[in-house]
Amino acid sequence: MSITGQLLIGQSSVQGTNAEIWSINAATGEKLPPAFAGATPDDLEHACALADAAFDTYRETSLNDRAVFLETIAKHILALGDELIERCMTETGLPRGRIEGERARTIGQLSLFASVVRDGGFIDARIDSALPQRTPLPRADIRLRKVAIGPVAVFGACNFPLAFSVAGGDTASALAAGCPVIVKAHSAHPGTSELVGQAIQKSVRDCNLPAGVFSLIYDCGLTIGQTLVADHRIKAVGFTGSRSGGVALMNIAAAREEPIPVYAEMSAINPVVLLPQALTERGTDIARDFIGSLTLSAGQFCTNPGLVLAIDSPALAAFERAASVAIGSVTAATMLTPSIHTSYCEGVERLSSHPSVELLGKGQAGGLFQGQAALFATTATAFMAHTTLREEVFGSSSLIVRCPDESTLLEVLKSLEGQLSIAVHVSNNDHPALGRLLPTLEKKAGRVLLNGFGTGVEVCHAMVHGGPFPATSDTRTTAVGSLAIHRFLRPVTYQDFPQHLLPPTLQDHNSYGISRRVNGVIQPS
Amino acid sequence: MSITGQLLIGQSSVQGTNAEIWSINAATGEKLPPAFAGATPDDLEHACALADAAFDTYRETSLNDRAVFLETIAKHILALGDELIERCMTETGLPRGRIEGERARTIGQLSLFASVVRDGGFIDARIDSALPQRTPLPRADIRLRKVAIGPVAVFGACNFPLAFSVAGGDTASALAAGCPVIVKAHSAHPGTSELVGQAIQKSVRDCNLPAGVFSLIYDCGLTIGQTLVADHRIKAVGFTGSRSGGVALMNIAAAREEPIPVYAEMSAINPVVLLPQALTERGTDIARDFIGSLTLSAGQFCTNPGLVLAIDSPALAAFERAASVAIGSVTAATMLTPSIHTSYCEGVERLSSHPSVELLGKGQAGGLFQGQAALFATTATAFMAHTTLREEVFGSSSLIVRCPDESTLLEVLKSLEGQLSIAVHVSNNDHPALGRLLPTLEKKAGRVLLNGFGTGVEVCHAMVHGGPFPATSDTRTTAVGSLAIHRFLRPVTYQDFPQHLLPPTLQDHNSYGISRRVNGVIQPS
Repeated sequence: MSITGQLLIGQSSVQGTNAEIWSINAATGEKLPPAFAGATPDDLEHACALADAAFDTYRETSLNDRAVFLETIAKHILALGDELIERCMTETGLPRGRIEGERARTIGQLSLFASVVRDGGFIDARIDSALPQRTPLPRADIRLRKVAIGPVAVFGACNFPLAFSVAGGDTASALAAGCPVIVKAHSAHPGTSELVGQAIQKSVRDCNLPAGVFSLIYDCGLTIGQTLVADHRIKAVGFTGSRSGGVALMNIAAAREEPIPVYAEMSAINPVVLLPQALTERGTDIARDFIGSLTLSAGQFCTNPGLVLAIDSPALAAFERAASVAIGSVTAATMLTPSIHTSYCEGVERLSSHPSVELLGKGQAGGLFQGQAALFATTATAFMAHTTLREEVFGSSSLIVRCPDESTLLEVLKSLEGQLSIAVHVSNNDHPALGRLLPTLEKKAGRVLLNGFGTGVEVCHAMVHGGPFPATSDTRTTAVGSLAIHRFLRPVTYQDFPQHLLPPTLQDHNSYGISRRVNGVIQPS
Repeated sequence: MSITGQLLIGQSSVQGTNAEIWSINAATGEKLPPAFAGATPDDLEHACALADAAFDTYRETSLNDRAVFLETIAKHILALGDELIERCMTETGLPRGRIEGERARTIGQLSLFASVVRDGGFIDARIDSALPQRTPLPRADIRLRKVAIGPVAVFGACNFPLAFSVAGGDTASALAAGCPVIVKAHSAHPGTSELVGQAIQKSVRDCNLPAGVFSLIYDCGLTIGQTLVADHRIKAVGFTGSRSGGVALMNIAAAREEPIPVYAEMSAINPVVLLPQALTERGTDIARDFIGSLTLSAGQFCTNPGLVLAIDSPALAAFERAASVAIGSVTAATMLTPSIHTSYCEGVERLSSHPSVELLGKGQAGGLFQGQAALFATTATAFMAHTTLREEVFGSSSLIVRCPDESTLLEVLKSLEGQLSIAVHVSNNDHPALGRLLPTLEKKAGRVLLNGFGTGVEVCHAMVHGGPFPATSDTRTTAVGSLAIHRFLRPVTYQDFPQHLLPPTLQDHNSYGISRRVNGVIQPS
């Protein structure tokens, strides 16, 4: 494979002719050739037409064929070898260990969805048998399956160049559901995107699938992405990025002649709640782990712990001192893009200059485009009074809110917007307090975790990486884990069909051997 | 029970002080006392505050307690006896058999959701066990359940005064999910609404549930309903009604600080496709059944067959003649409200006066507020050219579109908006043609049925009463059947929780004995 700067439209590589984007060395700001010329409306039209044409064939591929396709993508991504790792490191400034780990996660995610497809439970197959003798009216033979929703537009994330970009969670779950995918590459890592795109393109060919199952486009601005979301052939959208970007796509999708679902994962400050006994018993250890979580990958995680809530006490003061010491030895790290670095510096400056905010400590200063970690504190009163203090600062900055008592802490929690995760540190004596907070925690976040931090989102069956707005645009689902496939499905009923016209998953024979609900009772696979 | 005209706010009956609505005798247009004075913003505030306060307790009721509550509602509705039946007949103009059948459906629906709650499968409980020895990183203990989304606003339907109104499908599924419900009664049957509301209010009391689990309000206009949808404590909306009404609520929900899901079931013309051999073999029988389905309950069903697609042929001409004869003997029937009757007459007049539309037959003329059935025909060319021909005419009017060939018929299908149901009449030799149409049928409707009509929506596990916009606002779900409970749920992950702080459905012990997915494998109940 080599990086050409071309769009991937179905099985073709196409030279874009719109304004170009450049791959940037995150550490130096230098341009890396080649240029990636943007897609034109004609390119987009071609990609949408191909996706639409591929849909009926692709969505009815056998469960095994679709699983093999996902596994083939994983194989071809791995085969990109060090070229992918190095390009990705250069474009993002992230270190090798992180990129290799993210590749493993990306491949594991594709494998998980392959197993989800083979399992077939996602189809939610249901059969209610005919009751011809029922009075006063007979019952028809009624069968239900979930079908793929249609071609999906995916917007790659800046902060996960592999696991939430071209072959990331949104793409994997949409392809698993049976949906063709058109990816709009994030402009922060176009070279990485093209390499991974080539791996998918090759997999489509290897598996003899219709060309339109996958396309990859670039755009230097917003127009092409917005046109993509507005296209009548697109039936759902996956997005990871800023709140303003996500809300813009939500508005476009809602204003279409046929509104469609948007799954935007946007903005969270992921509160960490420190309960009194945990703080007393383990405050220093928690402080060390907290600074570790806060500064991992320069704090560029959507689950980064941007807010700490605790009851004011000597134990909290000790925690603050330990955290200040720990952050002091954190080296600065190159951020994903120069503009993210600029935004981070502005966010830190906003807190630094706020009259109600106290600077507790900073990490080591760094060079060009490197983020310097920062830890602040404020009072509950100030936090409740100034909404600016609850805005996400994307990077390794966090704010401790000192609450006079538990009821104030609960008030602060209730005042927050929706979150991806809330972490609570507890010891045994804190359990009653946790019980009192739990109903609020469940309502505010998609994931509540104890004695840990939200960074490190396991890709598994029981994971929710989601939450109420503005954490995401749709609290009914998750962006990580096997449940994510349900974002791209809709149910259809087949009434009084002869066996041979039913899809295999609904035929009496059940040739795939999937789990089904028959007359209300689950029949396991 | 007696009809008082009062709002039901939690356990209180409250005299509204806003502009009043009147119960109208559908057959005569006469007012039936008492007046139903509208809710004020203060009344609404009170209902929302109570619902919010009830939520945390109600959503954690045991599965059995919640099932018993639904069964108690059913029991108290039945206990209303003939007072309910007669009031409902008077307010809607629908005959006794229909209302008694609808009451049976309403009670059956509550019983179905009671069984769904006891089954517990809707919780989608998942457990991924901790893997402390895993390298490079251990896995935490991760558990997922679906929780109730929050208080729900339900807008009663005009055409189903029982099964889709105060204790109808939306209310039953929201209560089953663990959500308090505030119903805005449809102004076409306020007396029926109050009686049923009293039955729910009494059930809340009998089951010792928090008062705010249920409230019922009236409003003579749109303001209070819109304020309800905009209230920050409301987390989802169920609506059955017009396209304009549904879209208005969608827009309000999308513009909130925290956007929320709206489940609006709005507009469909439910195409009936007659394939050639079926038409040749059974055209006359199909024509008779078609007119029966079209004119049932004066055609006031959302699944009413408003469009017939067939290939022009002598068999189609014979079908048209038989249908024209059949419709000629259909007696006019009182429509739900004078304004629905007016709209129906306007819709029929719009078709009658259209230069490309031919009148095939009419039912018998009727008296005041009675709908006269009507059957029209046009060509595929005209249908494709005039979008006005595809607008829903709510009532017993249908339009036959004569297509020159199968590919034109497919074109017409592809040009349609989303539908609740599509019925196809086939004989064995038509199966290949059905196979060619099926991918389009699946994309256009929530339910595809053979050799029948969409009217008669079975309440069961495999039913989808849904479909792409504008049939509904959200194609990912259904308004009828057990799957409807998922509209009012969202997933939450619990990570590294001690057993006693987990909800019972996620504890190892599994005291409710529900089906769960453990390390990816379904463990049946």
